[in-house]
Amino acid sequence: AGVDKGVDFANYFCTYAFLYHQKEMLCDRVRMDAYYNAVFQNKHHFNGKTVLDVGTGSGILAIWAGQAGARKVYAVEATKMSEHARALVKANNLQGVVEVIEGSIEDITLPEKVDVIISEWMGYFLLRESMFDSVICARDRWLKPTGSMYPSHARMWLAPIRSGLGDQKMNDYEGSMDDWFYFLDETKTYYGVDMSALTKPFSEEQKKYYLQTSLWNNLHPNQLIGSAAMIKEIDCSTATVNDILDVRASMSSLITTEETRLCGFAGWFDVHFRGSKENPAQHEIELTTAPSEDYSTHWGQQVFLLHPSIHVSEGDNLAINFSMTRSKENHRLMEVELSCEIKQPSGRLLPPFRKKFYIE
Amino acid sequence: AGVDKGVDFANYFCTYAFLYHQKEMLCDRVRMDAYYNAVFQNKHHFNGKTVLDVGTGSGILAIWAGQAGARKVYAVEATKMSEHARALVKANNLQGVVEVIEGSIEDITLPEKVDVIISEWMGYFLLRESMFDSVICARDRWLKPTGSMYPSHARMWLAPIRSGLGDQKMNDYEGSMDDWFYFLDETKTYYGVDMSALTKPFSEEQKKYYLQTSLWNNLHPNQLIGSAAMIKEIDCSTATVNDILDVRASMSSLITTEETRLCGFAGWFDVHFRGSKENPAQHEIELTTAPSEDYSTHWGQQVFLLHPSIHVSEGDNLAINFSMTRSKENHRLMEVELSCEIKQPSGRLLPPFRKKFYIE
Ligand SMILES: Nc1ncnc2c1ncn2[C@@H]1O[C@H](CSCC[C@H](N)C(=O)O)[C@@H](O)[C@H]1O
Ligand SMILES: Nc1ncnc2c1ncn2[C@@H]1O[C@H](CSCC[C@H](N)C(=O)O)[C@@H](O)[C@H]1O
Repeated sequence: AGVDKGVDFANYFCTYAFLYHQKEMLCDRVRMDAYYNAVFQNKHHFNGKTVLDVGTGSGILAIWAGQAGARKVYAVEATKMSEHARALVKANNLQGVVEVIEGSIEDITLPEKVDVIISEWMGYFLLRESMFDSVICARDRWLKPTGSMYPSHARMWLAPIRSGLGDQKMNDYEGSMDDWFYFLDETKTYYGVDMSALTKPFSEEQKKYYLQTSLWNNLHPNQLIGSAAMIKEIDCSTATVNDILDVRASMSSLITTEETRLCGFAGWFDVHFRGSKENPAQHEIELTTAPSEDYSTHWGQQVFLLHPSIHVSEGDNLAINFSMTRSKENHRLMEVELSCEIKQPSGRLLPPFRKKFYIE
Repeated sequence: AGVDKGVDFANYFCTYAFLYHQKEMLCDRVRMDAYYNAVFQNKHHFNGKTVLDVGTGSGILAIWAGQAGARKVYAVEATKMSEHARALVKANNLQGVVEVIEGSIEDITLPEKVDVIISEWMGYFLLRESMFDSVICARDRWLKPTGSMYPSHARMWLAPIRSGLGDQKMNDYEGSMDDWFYFLDETKTYYGVDMSALTKPFSEEQKKYYLQTSLWNNLHPNQLIGSAAMIKEIDCSTATVNDILDVRASMSSLITTEETRLCGFAGWFDVHFRGSKENPAQHEIELTTAPSEDYSTHWGQQVFLLHPSIHVSEGDNLAINFSMTRSKENHRLMEVELSCEIKQPSGRLLPPFRKKFYIE
């Protein structure tokens, strides 16, 4: 949809061409366990079947599919990582089964339709990177009508949190503005130019950077101060690009912590491997990126901060309106609007607020 | 020359659209003093004249030219920073003199030729960013035959250094490889895939990153262990793109420190403001980015490390062959080849070495 391929490569694909980056994903044990179990505890979905791995990267998922007995695996990768994937396939004696194809999934053609599409397409807060578009494209072109999607379902979650990050970021912002005013003085004194006309745009730029850009964080579960609300559920077998272009939801969350501060919200996702209706999984597997005491993932959670924080108490009810759309400049980045009204158990309403955030 | 504009914008121009980044340059006192003095100590070059500022950024140089009495200043800027420049020009009451034009200098047209081209086009080690190409283009199209270039001359320097950075980077590299071998074990044990076929490309990727990519550093002068050798001198009034596409030099440097280790080389540049032959500067100004006890610049020096370092002594003579070309993937980044032969005062030759580096 009007995306310049060269620009998209410079902005997005380039990082995936580094083994260092692939290794970060391959070292995420939560991620690896989920896909590994999804494949090997559901061998009936792979044994003797044809499989397409969308964005094979190092080739790991394609190799597992091969080891689980697939007749043929097409492993498609847009970057030069394809060459390393090919070497890995060979070193693991699957060159007869796994065929690595370098190219965008949107551009390549396969000689046949497949029984299973497997892909690890999830970005921060599920949809950053917009790679699910490519999986939808692959599904509509190459999946047999009775085929299964791995994963088959995905959900987005939002919950109120407490966190020290907000004060920290506010400090950073204020420090940056102090520097700015010092800079204005110096520039006027030594170089005879009055730069104060730029104070407003500079402050807006810095606010956006420090306060409105969502943060990557692995939260502790005790930082969650209320119930998690589901923003969206996606059936990977039927979802269209239209369904995810504009994610909107009205939800409510109940504060479950006695007396605390609402410092912002955390967003995360989970995906499930359930196979398809005609051909359900023998063992359903879940991959969750929710805050956990024991596990963390490279996705962490996305944190949206409030300034200042708001005093809330157990039983307060948050009525939240959430919307997420794609950035106009880069369709792989997101803009979020959050508005919230807090109703105390007495029925009293706190003043509502509305904030805009950027997922960069 | 076959450069995709959108890609170039994504890779290069985008950073200049942030006030934060412009401010970093505006806070570099060495840089600011040099341009300020160049303009205000040579007012005869600006008073009543027409000036072109190539890449005006915040507009600072254009405003100075206006304050120095220019009749008309064309201030050309490729990014949206042009809007801030326009606001600044107005706030400093120069809207009648300074005209801000948003666009690439290669694309825009001016209503007249100019007496002076001023530009701050220098990247790390002078030529990174390849922005001088744009200044050459502007000069050939818009400078009167008798006009002057600000700056008028530029030089690149190289000197042998001692530094702890080499050991540090070697440690980082070795740590990364230790992680890799641990990762290989885990992946084999838990996920049944042998990734050792990727050890060589991973090690090459990490070597390139940690050991072959030149480093930004502000060196102390006592880290220089030998004489600085001039790689190249550029006359900004006559240089062509061809002259800077491929920078080659054979130089020699004499070790001036008693007993020490040669840990690598540092590259830096200086530029001079001398006006033109027909119209020389009244006060020649120099801007140097050489290591200095008292001053540092945001350019610092580019450090090229050797592993392992080599024992050298006072009087040793280094015969250096240097070449710098543009990266094939991105014409604004550079690849450097350095070869060196060390001759001791006794006439004995140490084994020569040759190394490749990337300026990213
Ligand atoms: N449209 C597209 N066509 C082909 N490859 C794509 C693509 N969009 C993203 N990719 C690739 O998909 C990969 C996603 S990361 C996942 C890598 C691998 N499957 C693993 O699980 O470890 C990246 O390597 C990226 O380059
Ligand atoms: N070909 C081109 N056409 C127009 N502007 C360009 C350009 N190449 C680089 N630039 C701009 O040149 C600026 C260089 S940084 C210097 C900014 C300003 N003159 C100062 O001295 O503070 C950047 O803002 C960059 O966007």
